[in-house]
Amino acid sequence: MISLTFFAMDSVRLINVKVRVGGEVKEFQTVWMEGDSVCMIDQTKLPFEFSIYRAQSVDEVVDAIRTMKVRGAPAIGVAACYGLAQVALQNVSAPPSELKALLSKSAARFLATRPTAVDMKNMLTRVLCACEELNSSDAIAQAVLSEARKIAQENVEACKKIGELGSRLIPKGARILVHCNPGALGTVDYGTALSIVRFAHAQGKNIFVYATETRPWLQGRLTCWELSQEGIPHCLVVDSAAGYYIHRGEVDVVLVGADRILPNGDVVNKIGTYMLAVAAYESNVPFIVAAPTTTIDLTGSPLKIEERPSEEVTHVKGYNPKSGESAYIRIHYDVEIRNPAFDITPAKYITSIVTEKGIFKPGQISV
Amino acid sequence: MISLTFFAMDSVRLINVKVRVGGEVKEFQTVWMEGDSVCMIDQTKLPFEFSIYRAQSVDEVVDAIRTMKVRGAPAIGVAACYGLAQVALQNVSAPPSELKALLSKSAARFLATRPTAVDMKNMLTRVLCACEELNSSDAIAQAVLSEARKIAQENVEACKKIGELGSRLIPKGARILVHCNPGALGTVDYGTALSIVRFAHAQGKNIFVYATETRPWLQGRLTCWELSQEGIPHCLVVDSAAGYYIHRGEVDVVLVGADRILPNGDVVNKIGTYMLAVAAYESNVPFIVAAPTTTIDLTGSPLKIEERPSEEVTHVKGYNPKSGESAYIRIHYDVEIRNPAFDITPAKYITSIVTEKGIFKPGQISV
Repeated sequence: MISLTFFAMDSVRLINVKVRVGGEVKEFQTVWMEGDSVCMIDQTKLPFEFSIYRAQSVDEVVDAIRTMKVRGAPAIGVAACYGLAQVALQNVSAPPSELKALLSKSAARFLATRPTAVDMKNMLTRVLCACEELNSSDAIAQAVLSEARKIAQENVEACKKIGELGSRLIPKGARILVHCNPGALGTVDYGTALSIVRFAHAQGKNIFVYATETRPWLQGRLTCWELSQEGIPHCLVVDSAAGYYIHRGEVDVVLVGADRILPNGDVVNKIGTYMLAVAAYESNVPFIVAAPTTTIDLTGSPLKIEERPSEEVTHVKGYNPKSGESAYIRIHYDVEIRNPAFDITPAKYITSIVTEKGIFKPGQISV
Repeated sequence: MISLTFFAMDSVRLINVKVRVGGEVKEFQTVWMEGDSVCMIDQTKLPFEFSIYRAQSVDEVVDAIRTMKVRGAPAIGVAACYGLAQVALQNVSAPPSELKALLSKSAARFLATRPTAVDMKNMLTRVLCACEELNSSDAIAQAVLSEARKIAQENVEACKKIGELGSRLIPKGARILVHCNPGALGTVDYGTALSIVRFAHAQGKNIFVYATETRPWLQGRLTCWELSQEGIPHCLVVDSAAGYYIHRGEVDVVLVGADRILPNGDVVNKIGTYMLAVAAYESNVPFIVAAPTTTIDLTGSPLKIEERPSEEVTHVKGYNPKSGESAYIRIHYDVEIRNPAFDITPAKYITSIVTEKGIFKPGQISV
């Protein structure tokens, strides 16, 4: 694992992460492949420390996704695809049928880590299909790696397109409320809702962002970290303050990502999205969902809302303001915790869904 | 300051706080007077440590209210009244006119600490009126102390009555969502919304409470602490999860307190109340406000929504799970914070307001 000290960016180019190492500025995406390692920015360390985690086995990839070293529906989907590529590369000497069985078994393990988001399922299905008809392990490994890379690249392009299209919906001077981290860190690059923010900012629209803190996991600090790198004016508010600003007429648009768009146009996203949508609806504030088409669940497969561990609520990570050392403390006593990670926002509250293929009304999304 | 180890209560009597000291169980109210000291349970230490703070000067009372050693609209109102009693007792040798001027000046200092709640203003006005016509400093001091004690006792009785009346609105088996800490700790005893919960529980109604965490100050842990003492089944959820349970039909009633009830029936309460009310309204879940009549702003005086310090959001208090030592850590990077402590819930979203004088519709509350 490499740890680097982070310094503020000196450029506002539309690119995920830049880190100054010595005199040099390096650029990173959220997740990538080096040899047979699945590499990722370790999001459990941000915003206090920028470090790269290199998962070298399927167990490490599974653990990285489960513990949210990588998070965000598209990002964990791509991480899992690279995980399959890793399995293929590390087992290329196995007979083809055995390798295929191993890939299927690994895909099932990835899928079990985070049951709610649908991108991973859609992406893994594509990777497995790409090698279905192949009869040599070498060819399988190449096909899996190639398909995983293609999916990652398509995600980058989709996010860029979402930014281009969605930024048309953002008026000049807009005050935008963003929930969770629908950012570059939740995708391979650019982000979904934050790609729209990036484009609107680059177009000189003079926007301002309210980033919600997003308890319990505090993804709001990732959003602030991304925004501060790009010099996009923003502030952070606790989740329950969002309604205050919406009701006062100080929010012009609410932008969120999605973990799963259901065939009926309902949107599954980070816990808290539902209340924001209802508040926006009451105040006639547009509520816009941004997601690549990989987030659409065309088959309407059974939906499970993930319950995350109690410790996510009872404990928090940060750092000691005196010593500067990282700290992990308990903030709640011994109490029963219920910690659903997602909620469902009915289509009626959603103004638009922005995908790389166009901007839709929720009722138009099903195929 | 006395620190005592806290042990779980062995009784469910309707009383604020019981603490076992050695073999003996002691009972406490939230704020009280001993000699010329204003004493209070230090709420910045709970739930990890039970300790009493004794404010011995007007500066200490002002600081205790500002830093939320004592909090909750009725509790800070009573603390300020005791603060006036302290001023009177400590300056009984001053000439009457000078003492009255000092009392007025002190009242203004208390009022400046927390500008939003109206109980303090209503209560302090009563105390100052009680000594207005008196011409000896001894008589003034006695009148101020006596009026402060009377106000405190009336608050206890009002809260008890709120519990009795409000519990009629709670069906058997109700799952009740409670925001912030409208508990004994926010009043002198019993609480407002939590008094209703206490009575409903004592009536064997088999209730269950969802306590919201209440960022940034985490008053939800105070609510859980009170509920655990009384053996009332409950869980804690992050603020943004409230809508999830309301929307799923798993909440039968939402109960909140109030910091100021406006003449038009709108309710000013802890940040987040507005979004809960809107969510409850959308799902046809009763939204009930509980407050003594001291919380009603009959005069419609200018409303200021308090903005609390950024540090309340960027830093959190808890304890080190390994060493058991208390800890105060930074959880957000250097970012602009907006931290409004209250929001306004329009009357249309409120089903009932429970006071000690009866249960009203918001439209009936103005006089």
